[in-house]
Amino acid sequence: MAVGKSPFPVMPPLAGVRLGSAMAGIKKPGRRDVVVIELPESAAVSGVFTRNAFCAAPVTVAKAHIERCRENGQSPRYWLVNTGNANAGTGKQGLQDAYASCKALAEQAGVAEHQVLPFSTGVIGEPLPMERLLAGLAPALYSTAEGSQAWQQAGEGILTTDTRAKGASITLDVSGGTITINGITKGSGMIKPNMATMLGFVVTDATIEQSLLDRLLRETVDASFNCITVDSDTSTNDACLLAATGAGAAVINDADIELFRDALQQVMTTLAQAIIRDGEGATKFVTLQVDDAKSRQEALDVAFTVAHSPLVKTALYASDANWGRILAAVGRAPVDNFDVSRVVIDLADVRLVEGGGRASGYTEKAGSAVMAQEEITIRISLGRGDESATVWTSDLSHDYVTINADYRS
Amino acid sequence: MAVGKSPFPVMPPLAGVRLGSAMAGIKKPGRRDVVVIELPESAAVSGVFTRNAFCAAPVTVAKAHIERCRENGQSPRYWLVNTGNANAGTGKQGLQDAYASCKALAEQAGVAEHQVLPFSTGVIGEPLPMERLLAGLAPALYSTAEGSQAWQQAGEGILTTDTRAKGASITLDVSGGTITINGITKGSGMIKPNMATMLGFVVTDATIEQSLLDRLLRETVDASFNCITVDSDTSTNDACLLAATGAGAAVINDADIELFRDALQQVMTTLAQAIIRDGEGATKFVTLQVDDAKSRQEALDVAFTVAHSPLVKTALYASDANWGRILAAVGRAPVDNFDVSRVVIDLADVRLVEGGGRASGYTEKAGSAVMAQEEITIRISLGRGDESATVWTSDLSHDYVTINADYRS
Repeated sequence: MAVGKSPFPVMPPLAGVRLGSAMAGIKKPGRRDVVVIELPESAAVSGVFTRNAFCAAPVTVAKAHIERCRENGQSPRYWLVNTGNANAGTGKQGLQDAYASCKALAEQAGVAEHQVLPFSTGVIGEPLPMERLLAGLAPALYSTAEGSQAWQQAGEGILTTDTRAKGASITLDVSGGTITINGITKGSGMIKPNMATMLGFVVTDATIEQSLLDRLLRETVDASFNCITVDSDTSTNDACLLAATGAGAAVINDADIELFRDALQQVMTTLAQAIIRDGEGATKFVTLQVDDAKSRQEALDVAFTVAHSPLVKTALYASDANWGRILAAVGRAPVDNFDVSRVVIDLADVRLVEGGGRASGYTEKAGSAVMAQEEITIRISLGRGDESATVWTSDLSHDYVTINADYRS
Repeated sequence: MAVGKSPFPVMPPLAGVRLGSAMAGIKKPGRRDVVVIELPESAAVSGVFTRNAFCAAPVTVAKAHIERCRENGQSPRYWLVNTGNANAGTGKQGLQDAYASCKALAEQAGVAEHQVLPFSTGVIGEPLPMERLLAGLAPALYSTAEGSQAWQQAGEGILTTDTRAKGASITLDVSGGTITINGITKGSGMIKPNMATMLGFVVTDATIEQSLLDRLLRETVDASFNCITVDSDTSTNDACLLAATGAGAAVINDADIELFRDALQQVMTTLAQAIIRDGEGATKFVTLQVDDAKSRQEALDVAFTVAHSPLVKTALYASDANWGRILAAVGRAPVDNFDVSRVVIDLADVRLVEGGGRASGYTEKAGSAVMAQEEITIRISLGRGDESATVWTSDLSHDYVTINADYRS
């Protein structure tokens, strides 16, 4: 199940960025499950990773390899992704396997081992099937190409329980010329990223300084991937990478940085929202906007408390305008000295709650009309300050239970 | 659905404690939905209530009435409970209705208005159907009796989505004679109590000082009702009341206090566990024991993170020994400087995780054999200190979604 239509966009080629994939039989026969993304030597690369204490072996290795590249003044040249196995909870063997897969690709591609960054997604706790993975490297490498089809096939190759490939692309003019930002992502369940989503790969041909790229990645991820939740479960493998190849125009002055930042935010938000629209079992796409909070953290706490409430999520699934559950979830959020008489809750343009209870003009008919829609905005004003946050989530359906009671992830 | 059998126990009568119920048509026709519990003038009464900021009108009124009784040196004489309507999110009208229902019962019973404590459970945000409720008071009052059948009918009269009445009773000897503790409770969904569960009513004939009673209630609730979760949703109406009628032996010296405390804890824990066994859609009863934490709060944080994980809960439902999901949930718990290489996770007597990954002796067969059982213990040792916590939870099944997509609660 998935909310709305979401065709994969046309991706303009980025000079020197080549994507390849292979069917290595890791996930299941006849399914792309190994993806190689090649970057030019000029690329600056930033990454953010899961904060789960049990982080996966590829996360540990990717972070170490980025560090090593920076020490040596080199660029990471390959992102190596497999689906079907997360290589998480695999202890020392998992680390050895992640290093060995980087080494094998590096030898075939003629780069240093630490110029390969590994990423894995799929079942936790099973050893990485090294024989199949290694056999998939050559065909994946051989198939690399720059075109839109290569982006789409890579987008398909990284999926797990996702029902469709997710991409976003923007081309914009800055003072020195035209630049493009392309991104793909995957994720459907175990989605409550804390630093980044399950997997996100974004590449631009902009020329941009490393420290600025690092900062822009952190900022845009904070307002996109870090503001989505399917099921509150932060994955062991979350990673979001951003590369700037330097083949295109430079992003230097403040006006250009702002233009680029806005475009990058748009790509990140589109990708993050695409994960929610394709959330496991999702039948609704829900925007939770919390305003008038004392701090952004307070606004996020209220938004996530509502977004994680199984009772709110099942009411959304049922298209039931059961606003009492929203009120109850807001009321249990961790807010100090919470005066609920100041809280106002709106469902799209229908006022649900004010003065500590049901809004006087509310009718079940008006509430039900909004709840019947596929895309729903719930706005919660706390009446305590000026800070806001927006969080996106999906509903809790029978299909979510079916998927997760059947799928070994 | 519910886990295991759980017959309602025989409840010895407590002198002066009379329970009555009526079918007032609030929940549905032919269903007990108004309950009156009468206490003798000698009773000491303690209560703990929800910390949900949107607390229900009856919670506000019950707290105010307890306060007023204490100021006047009087005892609360009646607990008035209705199911089918929570009188929550109902603003000023809700408060007026709660006060009016106390006043009506007080007049019929010949006590002061503040000697009646109101409790409601059911749908949030609908006005209390006062005409039906008031019409139910006389028959409920008329039917009051001391016997075990009256306890059981009261236990039935407070249920919502529960599938069965829940009671516990213990008789023990203290130095001055024999005393009994009887309790009933209800709750099935919107269960993650923070102070107390949905509704719990416990009465003893012990003679016990008010301040000691208050403390024992807090302590035993902290280790019972405050350690259960069905769906992480803290209700607007949680309340747990404890009355000591003073008709029986006195609990004064340290040895007696310890005996009484242990017995009270057993009653509270039995009632709290009964809620989990009858949790909405529950097919499993799960004990999460976290040991070797730096603080009890840290142990509770880890236990609740695992207990609230939809992925762990669906794996439990599927009887799938998907230990990677337990590892991932532990890894995202809010623990500072978390060294996961020291974490040990056991499923009953099967070691799942050690040294940062799968335990060397683990076999899928051994894990699956435990997961197939109805009652499962997951033990997580953090290897950081000496503190522990135990939390009880249920699984996430299709029936949970069905119940909450269908039921307006």
